[in-house]
Amino acid sequence: MNKVITISREFGSGGRELGRRLAEALGFAYYDREIVEEIANRSELSVHYVNDILEHRPAFSFPIHTGTSFVMTEAIWNPTQTVYMAQCQILKEMAEKSDCVVVGRCSDYILREFEPLSVFVYARMQHRIERCREKRPDEERTDRQLVRMIKNIDKHRAKYYEFFTARKWGDKSHYDICINTSAIDVKDAAAMLADYVKSTSTPKIST
Amino acid sequence: MNKVITISREFGSGGRELGRRLAEALGFAYYDREIVEEIANRSELSVHYVNDILEHRPAFSFPIHTGTSFVMTEAIWNPTQTVYMAQCQILKEMAEKSDCVVVGRCSDYILREFEPLSVFVYARMQHRIERCREKRPDEERTDRQLVRMIKNIDKHRAKYYEFFTARKWGDKSHYDICINTSAIDVKDAAAMLADYVKSTSTPKIST
Repeated sequence: MNKVITISREFGSGGRELGRRLAEALGFAYYDREIVEEIANRSELSVHYVNDILEHRPAFSFPIHTGTSFVMTEAIWNPTQTVYMAQCQILKEMAEKSDCVVVGRCSDYILREFEPLSVFVYARMQHRIERCREKRPDEERTDRQLVRMIKNIDKHRAKYYEFFTARKWGDKSHYDICINTSAIDVKDAAAMLADYVKSTSTPKIST
Repeated sequence: MNKVITISREFGSGGRELGRRLAEALGFAYYDREIVEEIANRSELSVHYVNDILEHRPAFSFPIHTGTSFVMTEAIWNPTQTVYMAQCQILKEMAEKSDCVVVGRCSDYILREFEPLSVFVYARMQHRIERCREKRPDEERTDRQLVRMIKNIDKHRAKYYEFFTARKWGDKSHYDICINTSAIDVKDAAAMLADYVKSTSTPKIST
């Protein structure tokens, strides 16, 4: 069985960067936005719309933009479930293909049969605000606007996760390790996890 | 400033073993039961009674056994606070003395000015039951009795912690890293943390 690492994260905590660095350090495949693109391809919904379902707003709250002229009936009537079903299929295919690091998208739950190392990344609000400013220096938002945006995205992530998994998003009991990037630098956290994975991996026997 | 690592833990999760291994790997002082003994010495309460206040039952629920014939008035009227005050003083003295690993006893909060690496160790109930059986093979308890005991100890730890810190015990936002020992072996977790601490420590400049 391939080695799978799933990264769940609070918005602005640096979970995505941690995942990317970890994949690089281990030489694993890295899946993040590629998942959204592949879901869009298969469900025939636009990348923008899929991303909105996954990250920003509940389904049905704004018009569907389709990527092609043909729209599946299921996608019209239940786009959130269509997206979730495509997501399950794609994630499992990715995990079957090779060792990988997957960021977000309920991957810790969907890939549970692969016994992933499931990581949750979080940080204090002030740290997340500073990180958002650093990543998007051109965006002019007040601290209050940033806090509102961060809380909204997390709220929707939690809602989406809880709807499909019946688990509480961010509850440490569902993860193997939770890392606070206000205290532990993202680079150091990635190096630490990479060393752990290397030291505990059984070398594959070539057949 | 000395390097301080605090280990908070659910009962039966292996947090104590993790702390001991970590201290050994780093060559740090290790404080655990020594704290109870020192509190007993200074407060003139018995070790057994101090331990009961810290771990098992609310104060005032059973008679005080003193270690000496002289009993301080404060210890009679408010043993829990007497224990807490002694605990604060002792922990700070220990942290000022050398690099150290401290297990339990609200150390993450009491030593916050030392900016410790604060670790929370937890595990699934089944794992904790198995660990309890392994550690005390002669004790004959049913699973139900063990679950009741584990829950009771954790309940009291939470109550004690929350009373003195106004923080929720086990809430990941108060810790730098949370480790699930159902998934990550205690030895591996200790090695991982030791490597992290070594890699991020600034060598001391001798004067």
